[in-house]
Amino acid sequence: MAPVIIKNYRTIATEKRAQRWDKIPKDWRIPEAQFQDALINVMDIPVTCGLLNETERAITSDYDATALLEKLKARVWSVEQVVVAFCKRAAIAQQLTNCLTEIFFDEAIERARKLDLDHGGDKSREKDLPPLFGLPISLKDSFQVSGYDTSTGLGCYTYQPSEENSALAAMLTDLGAVLYCKTNLPQSIMTGDSDNNVFGRTLNPRNKMLTAGGSTGGEGALLALRGSILGVGTDIAGSIRVPSVCNGIYGFRPSVGLVPHGGVRDLTPPGTDGVRSTAGPMATSLRDCALFIKSILQADTWRYDSTAISVPWVSLKPAKHQLRIGLAENDGVYTPSPPVRRGLKRAVDRLRQSNDIDIIPITLSDVKLHCQDLVSYLTLSGSNYYHEQFARTGEPVVPSLEAIGLLSVPGTTLQGLLDLNVRRAEAAKTYLKLFRDNSLDAILMPPAPHTAVPLDTWTAATYTGLWNYLDYPAIVIPVDQVRDIDCADDLSNAKFGPDDERLYRLYTGPEQYKGAPVCIQVVGYRHRDEALTKTAAVLDSIINGNLST
Amino acid sequence: MAPVIIKNYRTIATEKRAQRWDKIPKDWRIPEAQFQDALINVMDIPVTCGLLNETERAITSDYDATALLEKLKARVWSVEQVVVAFCKRAAIAQQLTNCLTEIFFDEAIERARKLDLDHGGDKSREKDLPPLFGLPISLKDSFQVSGYDTSTGLGCYTYQPSEENSALAAMLTDLGAVLYCKTNLPQSIMTGDSDNNVFGRTLNPRNKMLTAGGSTGGEGALLALRGSILGVGTDIAGSIRVPSVCNGIYGFRPSVGLVPHGGVRDLTPPGTDGVRSTAGPMATSLRDCALFIKSILQADTWRYDSTAISVPWVSLKPAKHQLRIGLAENDGVYTPSPPVRRGLKRAVDRLRQSNDIDIIPITLSDVKLHCQDLVSYLTLSGSNYYHEQFARTGEPVVPSLEAIGLLSVPGTTLQGLLDLNVRRAEAAKTYLKLFRDNSLDAILMPPAPHTAVPLDTWTAATYTGLWNYLDYPAIVIPVDQVRDIDCADDLSNAKFGPDDERLYRLYTGPEQYKGAPVCIQVVGYRHRDEALTKTAAVLDSIINGNLST
Repeated sequence: MAPVIIKNYRTIATEKRAQRWDKIPKDWRIPEAQFQDALINVMDIPVTCGLLNETERAITSDYDATALLEKLKARVWSVEQVVVAFCKRAAIAQQLTNCLTEIFFDEAIERARKLDLDHGGDKSREKDLPPLFGLPISLKDSFQVSGYDTSTGLGCYTYQPSEENSALAAMLTDLGAVLYCKTNLPQSIMTGDSDNNVFGRTLNPRNKMLTAGGSTGGEGALLALRGSILGVGTDIAGSIRVPSVCNGIYGFRPSVGLVPHGGVRDLTPPGTDGVRSTAGPMATSLRDCALFIKSILQADTWRYDSTAISVPWVSLKPAKHQLRIGLAENDGVYTPSPPVRRGLKRAVDRLRQSNDIDIIPITLSDVKLHCQDLVSYLTLSGSNYYHEQFARTGEPVVPSLEAIGLLSVPGTTLQGLLDLNVRRAEAAKTYLKLFRDNSLDAILMPPAPHTAVPLDTWTAATYTGLWNYLDYPAIVIPVDQVRDIDCADDLSNAKFGPDDERLYRLYTGPEQYKGAPVCIQVVGYRHRDEALTKTAAVLDSIINGNLST
Repeated sequence: MAPVIIKNYRTIATEKRAQRWDKIPKDWRIPEAQFQDALINVMDIPVTCGLLNETERAITSDYDATALLEKLKARVWSVEQVVVAFCKRAAIAQQLTNCLTEIFFDEAIERARKLDLDHGGDKSREKDLPPLFGLPISLKDSFQVSGYDTSTGLGCYTYQPSEENSALAAMLTDLGAVLYCKTNLPQSIMTGDSDNNVFGRTLNPRNKMLTAGGSTGGEGALLALRGSILGVGTDIAGSIRVPSVCNGIYGFRPSVGLVPHGGVRDLTPPGTDGVRSTAGPMATSLRDCALFIKSILQADTWRYDSTAISVPWVSLKPAKHQLRIGLAENDGVYTPSPPVRRGLKRAVDRLRQSNDIDIIPITLSDVKLHCQDLVSYLTLSGSNYYHEQFARTGEPVVPSLEAIGLLSVPGTTLQGLLDLNVRRAEAAKTYLKLFRDNSLDAILMPPAPHTAVPLDTWTAATYTGLWNYLDYPAIVIPVDQVRDIDCADDLSNAKFGPDDERLYRLYTGPEQYKGAPVCIQVVGYRHRDEALTKTAAVLDSIINGNLST
């Protein structure tokens, strides 16, 4: 029986977009003369469009969250100044890339004023300020924020404002942060292109012809443009890491449950379990990812979320030993494209030159099988539930969702699920052995076989998905971008079969991929997220010359 | 099709019991004159039977594990002396209660000698000794110990010596402990009576007419007789806590995954998940439970077990606030029997007299429903798998397994499992709210509606099972025993319906229940196991006058 369509998705989309536009103050709208829609790279526009004054430019351009937090606590600027600056820059980013869904600048500015008032003036009491005092933080649309829709870009969930905050939104607010907007994501929250029928597609500000990634693509674009410097995504197969790769930012997929995920809307059938989505930070520096995780883990997550695994932050001392880094040049399924190979090699060369790192070549076993099982976990009940949700407002399937084939997976039975569990338990043993027998501190590998790719062509999730399957924490670190030397090479370099060849063919050379960031992925052991932040900081400082925390 | 029976269970049982008997040295066998089979309470026999010399008596009688460990590290006795003493006393306990399955005294004594040799003489290096240096620890049969069967009392798994240690056995050995025997459990590892067709039934040394409890009943009896002072059980519905109640010892069911459970034989179909068994300590003092948990959590469990949740021990400071203890006098399903009510009241009265404790009366909601769902989780695939395992050696179902009805549960579908997950997620929110809104440090309640009951009549698992369903850590603390004043009272006191009445009827008065321990249960929040040990220590010190650690 066809469902009764209360309201067609087109009407909803028109209304929602108009409402969103109304939330952007008139004098924050980019003058048409500045818009230059034909520009492929819009990274400079926030600063050149003339909407930000010099203070706002400095606040939003010159600091990472850690540094900005110091300024906020030292009262260099009021919270209001900082929040207004980021609201304004987020508004600009929205106009350039369509990265936002729900906008609540007014409430954010009001809260900023209240924070200024409540903690007025007295610098001597800096240590009494809440840990994230006044820091603007953006959230993926799937996090419930009281008073606003959690539509996840689906027509059927619009006009149902949340009655309470998701656990993380509540927690961040209690920690002193200021929430000011939510960001775009794909229909189904499962694809590598943040495109849906309500809000449309988010564009990649570095190259609008390439995907902004997904599913946390709105955050990716917003952070690249510094309309936010600390955002929160979720990741069940790569949804934090893929947009981090596409937009050249840092992204941290923590072990499941460490960061409260309660009150996040999933689109899988209620009760689906096996592989769980995890919430984590996206930022412009690694130490901001650490700041986020540390602030959360120190703050009794269990009080906020009945699904949390409250692993405390223990302020680990730096490792006394030579760090041992397992190097996986590929995942045995897809061959990395030339710029990805070059970026990894460059990073490894720098690490090798350091005296603090041992590089141990490793092979990742059975990645294809494990990722097939990951897909089975994600579609235990098949795809009817997705179709039902889409049908309520008559909305079509977006191209990227069609492309990944998720909607044609048939689902399984209880016995099928038990079989999945058995295989994964074996895989968990194998990978623990890999870590333990090699005394690894982390695994270094590409985060994907390619950089950002043309729209709706991101279909490979093996590099990221393996770690969701095993629930290992993983961090994306930008190390370079596609350069003129990154010529396309012969298809014969793709050694893993026809699927590999098909994907390898995507890379056509530096012209089409201009500006695409090149990143690495650093993977730690399950629940050893704090140890991973330490290890990754050392690697980042060697590779990128950033200060480790 | 009936399975081909390779070997009948009766033959196996006869052989296994004969082999076990052979493992007890001739001069450790209780003289027939001392045996007094008619004795109902055999608690004195280990000391009066004449087999232990004065040093052995002192070693095994006068200390808890914490104190004994100090003596071991101070070299008051050699490891060999200590291990021989406990092997001997375990052999005596075996003869009195049938509590052991696999015996490896010879290997244990050899290892003890090696430990003495490796860490010879030099007291000044006490701090370099492994944390559990020389401490004898007993394990439930389901833990794999290399070279010995992990039959779990099933004929079909005999004569298949384990090729490697379970994660916990490996870990305890690395920590310096000495494993010397494994202990008895029920067919299916699911009942409250440790009775199976291979090893037979374990008896309660305090009153042989009452059950020793299950499923970790062998540990219970062994610890009551001090044939061990630190044992390890597993608990999926009460299997650590029920025998702790029956035998009057301390038992700690940790949150799932904190203590490595890898390599423990489960009898559920491979891949079964949802509610997991957890490993935990049973001991003669609360501080020994804490010693165990602390030693494990400090030692990187993740290195040993791919299923572990490595929550670190953070050496929590004692709470600065008045402790807030939620008091649940019953679970709304079964009415506690007169001695259980009296024991709880006595404990609460003492706590109320203290100035450090606030008692907050609470109600546990929907316990019956939650425990029905617990049973559904434990029988996702129905009972065919049990029957298949039993059929391989033609063994019948033991009475206690028949009594609990587990084998007639039909199993469910994938959708049924998702529905269970949805209901449990709601329950988890409700119970978090209970903890949080009342600012509870712990919940105090009976561990069961009754004390040890006559053989094969323990069928109620609601008081313990609720916390498996929610995965909350829970500790059993002995507070008294049945006394002459504990008369049976009117059936009208049982207010929760016919099932409650049926169970309430079991208590016939102090004559039949002579010597039965009375215990309380202290429940903490999920993963806050360390906080629970601190809280429980305060309660224990007030109620029992024991030193808190």
